Amino acid sequence: MKLEELSITQIEERQLQLEKQYAAYKSAGLSLDLTRGKPGAEQLDLSNSLDGILQGFYLLQDGTDVRNYGGLTGIPEARKLGGLFMDLPAEEVMVGGNSSLTLMYNYIHFMMESVWLAESQVSNATIKFLCPVPGYDRHFTICDAFNIEMIPVDMLDDGPDMDQIERLIAQDASIKGIWCVPKYSNPTGVTYTSQVVERFAKLPTNAGNHFKIMWDNAYAVHDLNDQPDQLANLMDAAREAETTESIVMFASTSKVTFAGSGISFIGLSQDNLKAFETFLSASAIGPDKVNQLRHVRFLVDAAGIQAHMRKHRDIIGPKFEMVDNVLSQHLGGKGIARWTKPMGGYFVSLDTLPGLASTIITMAGDVGVKLTPAGATFPNGDDPRNQNIRIAPTFPSTQALRQALEVFVVCLELASIKQLLER
Amino acid sequence: MKLEELSITQIEERQLQLEKQYAAYKSAGLSLDLTRGKPGAEQLDLSNSLDGILQGFYLLQDGTDVRNYGGLTGIPEARKLGGLFMDLPAEEVMVGGNSSLTLMYNYIHFMMESVWLAESQVSNATIKFLCPVPGYDRHFTICDAFNIEMIPVDMLDDGPDMDQIERLIAQDASIKGIWCVPKYSNPTGVTYTSQVVERFAKLPTNAGNHFKIMWDNAYAVHDLNDQPDQLANLMDAAREAETTESIVMFASTSKVTFAGSGISFIGLSQDNLKAFETFLSASAIGPDKVNQLRHVRFLVDAAGIQAHMRKHRDIIGPKFEMVDNVLSQHLGGKGIARWTKPMGGYFVSLDTLPGLASTIITMAGDVGVKLTPAGATFPNGDDPRNQNIRIAPTFPSTQALRQALEVFVVCLELASIKQLLER
Repeated sequence: MKLEELSITQIEERQLQLEKQYAAYKSAGLSLDLTRGKPGAEQLDLSNSLDGILQGFYLLQDGTDVRNYGGLTGIPEARKLGGLFMDLPAEEVMVGGNSSLTLMYNYIHFMMESVWLAESQVSNATIKFLCPVPGYDRHFTICDAFNIEMIPVDMLDDGPDMDQIERLIAQDASIKGIWCVPKYSNPTGVTYTSQVVERFAKLPTNAGNHFKIMWDNAYAVHDLNDQPDQLANLMDAAREAETTESIVMFASTSKVTFAGSGISFIGLSQDNLKAFETFLSASAIGPDKVNQLRHVRFLVDAAGIQAHMRKHRDIIGPKFEMVDNVLSQHLGGKGIARWTKPMGGYFVSLDTLPGLASTIITMAGDVGVKLTPAGATFPNGDDPRNQNIRIAPTFPSTQALRQALEVFVVCLELASIKQLLER
Repeated sequence: MKLEELSITQIEERQLQLEKQYAAYKSAGLSLDLTRGKPGAEQLDLSNSLDGILQGFYLLQDGTDVRNYGGLTGIPEARKLGGLFMDLPAEEVMVGGNSSLTLMYNYIHFMMESVWLAESQVSNATIKFLCPVPGYDRHFTICDAFNIEMIPVDMLDDGPDMDQIERLIAQDASIKGIWCVPKYSNPTGVTYTSQVVERFAKLPTNAGNHFKIMWDNAYAVHDLNDQPDQLANLMDAAREAETTESIVMFASTSKVTFAGSGISFIGLSQDNLKAFETFLSASAIGPDKVNQLRHVRFLVDAAGIQAHMRKHRDIIGPKFEMVDNVLSQHLGGKGIARWTKPMGGYFVSLDTLPGLASTIITMAGDVGVKLTPAGATFPNGDDPRNQNIRIAPTFPSTQALRQALEVFVVCLELASIKQLLER
């Protein structure tokens, strides 16, 4: 029953109940954390055999000794592996170090130095990026670092609001790109439909020069369901639309093997890849090829990746189930929260009543349950409706997760009641 | 006997002899390479146990799981290890990925964005760097990438020409830094004396604001002799002179373990380190901590490093001996070349008669012996005397090295004779 349909007496009774519970949590001295979008120890254990997997064999088929210097584009075997993540031929894949974030930052730096800065000096216009919201805070941090102005656009159920996007870029040639997490989007879990992907491929034709679609496919293989979402191949659509120059894809093994010691991929047309390689050559002699070879030996092929990711699902699937169960049990039907039940990825995105996110996060923090800061999923930390909360269920133990969620729902309902009573 | 003291008949006879030899090399179809300052396979084999050394133990003393995200400054154990390379407390060391070159590039990028660019816009002066020559080409490439003007300064037997350096920076506040390889300098093999180090520590007091000494201690532990060169501790001297803010030290395990898969170190005052960490946080979540832990387990401590480097010396010491022997045997006393006999490091630096380096390199290339391009050790590839050639003896097999050197000395003497006869 919706809270607003209760009588005042009923509501005040419920408030008293919740305040009691909240006070009990306060004295319990909890220390729980729902902020960290990182794998738990049990997941990391799945990849322990990475260390030692080479057994003294360091030579590639082409004779390259992976222990020595060189090879900025990555070893051929790993480029092929990256192609499986991004649905690209090996020639369009460069393999980097332990972080796709670094590849993203470097690519933006490359574009700034090679054309964007010069263009903006001529046009005297600030460089701008579109940011579907809620989104990934570290994308926004990169824009911040390069003084790129961010324009939020709404996420809908099938992807970002394409009407809005098309209108904006047609109006303003200083919009130089857009951030996307096209599959199991961070944090909403949305996978862009093939119609949306299609429209993305055509986007650059109406944009100003040197427009880049930053396609961060971080959760390419991170399914939680027997019928996983299918993401259409943007590069193929772009070949059709003759816009491949604008496509910049990313993926990594960070949430596949070791989060901090994986390998990262960038997908680019061959011309783009060559130009980016030249840019990188001032700052690097080559990536860690030994670790690339480890990953090739460990994951092997598409079937190997799939089998490995199934083990992750067996561990984290029940945690996502639990989030939905606890939220449904305590908040279902009350009209005070909506949340996602993602088919993959790492997050549950929850919307409170407008204006309550920061209050609820503070309340939970005060009794020892850490939540991602309000606004973190928005450019400049600014959630205009102050209602989005990102829940990361993978890292805590099942028990800690349940406990944290139970505290969270009390905070949420209590804050909602207070707001109702103050109306 | 000096060539110029020979009679014309004797010289012409010698020329004929050498031309015969050169023709024989030409028809031999050689393919040899003296350009690569990288370890040979036998050296790499010394570290093969790195892969598998963790045996499933991924936890640090402080409870950190090295497999997961985070920890931009590197793991405490690796910071301590880096301190051994750079003679610094762990608190002044940050541990990066597989390349100290990337740390150098990132540090220059950090300085550009945080102050240098803004300063140069105000003063309307180009940012400049001092570059002791001959030097390391990749330092120069970084300057190029950021449009930093390079001013060459001479290397002397005890380090760079400090009189020249002190004069230049007193005259020009837009000189923002200097590149140094202070121990077994690339390529001259010179180790800066403690007097020179002392003068370096005082340098910033007379320089403009935000002057940085880029102290690339790439060969910190790479001795080839029982009485290795001792490098004075610049940071200690800077503490005395109150100039620690200007000190930026680098080291790595690239020529200690695996060249392409080692770990890198940057040494900074604690304040500097904090500021640099903030800068890096936009582009990285943390370095590969698993590989850092591997290196800690493998090298262990100062004694471990020393014992390991002794094995390298046993492999490459004889190669350096051979270079000196072949050069002495064929060129000794002829007055047509001077070369270094370094106590450590990776290179032999040879000076021909003025104007001959590029000719000799082309001649050797024409018969299949690849030498580092003339001028590579100078900013903008410009050796004003066209006489420096860098020889890298570590990578080829002993046999290939001897053969390449024998070709090289023929080219060198032949070119010198032609020059003499044309006088």
